Amino acid sequence: MQNLFTGTVGLIQMRMEPARDANLARATAHIEAAAGQGARVICLPELFLSPYFCQTEDPRCFDLAEPIPGPATEALGAVARRLGVVLVVPLFERRAAGVYHNSAAVLDADGALLGVYRKMHIPDDPGYYEKYYFAPGDLGFRTFDTRLGRLAVLICWDQWFPEAARLAALQGASLIFYPSAIGWHPAEQASVGTTQRAAWQTVQRGQAITNGVYVAAVNRVGREQPAGGAGLDFWGSSFVCDPLGVMLAEAPADREAILLMPVDGARVEEVRRQWPFLRDRRIGAYGGLTQRYLDQPPSGAAPLERNGGP
Amino acid sequence: MQNLFTGTVGLIQMRMEPARDANLARATAHIEAAAGQGARVICLPELFLSPYFCQTEDPRCFDLAEPIPGPATEALGAVARRLGVVLVVPLFERRAAGVYHNSAAVLDADGALLGVYRKMHIPDDPGYYEKYYFAPGDLGFRTFDTRLGRLAVLICWDQWFPEAARLAALQGASLIFYPSAIGWHPAEQASVGTTQRAAWQTVQRGQAITNGVYVAAVNRVGREQPAGGAGLDFWGSSFVCDPLGVMLAEAPADREAILLMPVDGARVEEVRRQWPFLRDRRIGAYGGLTQRYLDQPPSGAAPLERNGGP
Repeated sequence: MQNLFTGTVGLIQMRMEPARDANLARATAHIEAAAGQGARVICLPELFLSPYFCQTEDPRCFDLAEPIPGPATEALGAVARRLGVVLVVPLFERRAAGVYHNSAAVLDADGALLGVYRKMHIPDDPGYYEKYYFAPGDLGFRTFDTRLGRLAVLICWDQWFPEAARLAALQGASLIFYPSAIGWHPAEQASVGTTQRAAWQTVQRGQAITNGVYVAAVNRVGREQPAGGAGLDFWGSSFVCDPLGVMLAEAPADREAILLMPVDGARVEEVRRQWPFLRDRRIGAYGGLTQRYLDQPPSGAAPLERNGGP
Repeated sequence: MQNLFTGTVGLIQMRMEPARDANLARATAHIEAAAGQGARVICLPELFLSPYFCQTEDPRCFDLAEPIPGPATEALGAVARRLGVVLVVPLFERRAAGVYHNSAAVLDADGALLGVYRKMHIPDDPGYYEKYYFAPGDLGFRTFDTRLGRLAVLICWDQWFPEAARLAALQGASLIFYPSAIGWHPAEQASVGTTQRAAWQTVQRGQAITNGVYVAAVNRVGREQPAGGAGLDFWGSSFVCDPLGVMLAEAPADREAILLMPVDGARVEEVRRQWPFLRDRRIGAYGGLTQRYLDQPPSGAAPLERNGGP
């Protein structure tokens, strides 16, 4: 079971206020509460230090970014050390003038900065103008060896890409965190809200199943409405599911919550023996995955992919 | 909308009898019924000409195989032509002495054999001894341009591998069929049956969502118990889901059924504009997917994957 993550996960589903320091203080209080209830690894929502500023494109919002390491990782590193908990801390990272990332720092239970994940898949659609703010991550898909085992962090839009979860699992992660900021457009909620949220949960449960990993998704919650904008209703619904995709715990859609759930590396070992997908991957036939699209001649012509290898 | 599949899908969820010709006759009758109800593309379950012989390893079972083209594709090609329907025909393929595949032939609405898919991911676990019978497919992941649009066929165990569905979608398939033979071990059904079937549906709905495609899964149904064996209860539950993973139609778990559902290429176009995952894939960072496993030094060392490309 070496390296397979074992310990109690704590997810902080929170709403955000305008002021950075207020969000940091409230997050710290939630972390203390989660730790007090037994959480050993605690994850905050995507970009937890501010409202979801990507609803508009505004150059002033770059002022919200801070370096890693920096003030937030120093403050929360001290919290991690004091409480003896691993922390996953999503931050708007200022890397250099004009180079910003949507990132997550991982702090070990002694407060040490284990490393940073920079969001690899950057969305851009109405109300989620992230390509304006964030350079695509250039650190690839990573894992972090915490005191409780190896975990991976992916961020929001990454959750729709099976390539990301697969590369995390292939590097030994048995627990994947997905800090998120996803919500309904108020005008759409009645017509497609149920479908959208179900798809969000289904696709992440699918990543758990195909890889035999635990998945822990933590979302922000509540209405955020910038001046003149239609706003977004962040749908909460943070959850933990097991390596068979079974929902173990789920937070409400409409209010803050601390979600706690033990995860067990032995369960990952067991499930992967029952359904040994990683054994049977046809790695010799997956080369096309590194292409944008596989333009193809009409039917009857030879397929692009041929391989007799395993 | 060129090539995006549009038409009514018909799924033949059936039980199998010992005699090949009886299964062929019953499948033909079901196809006629589905076509009479409006189906334009009809898919049979995996290995529909026989009981699921892979419950044991028995060299006599190789006698069940037949070539493609061969007697089954000739008989069903005539049916396709007569009814004017596209057929997906899963067969135990004899390619050469000692070279057998778990395959599916695709017959166009004029009866022409468009091509063959050979199952790429071969399972092997108690009661599903497929590695004994089937050489892994060597044609890669393929699509077929039928008169109604481009579709892909994957077979059963393939459904757990996001690589397979992705490569089908990247080649332009907007509809993926998963003919299947999956069931419960009778001793396990009470304890894990619900979870297993839910995982089977969830993972396929996930493939639909991540790729923006329709998924049509067709399973056999009923108890099959070889002499001296514990048997399998094939759980039916064939379904069609849309590109957001919404279940459009689902067959019962305990009896034969013909499931019909129209699918619409325009819906694929619309969904992929709303959630443009294919735009944002980080193809420069996916090279590790062609590896069996990404053995990694302890935390803190450089990650295996680094790439600043798109």
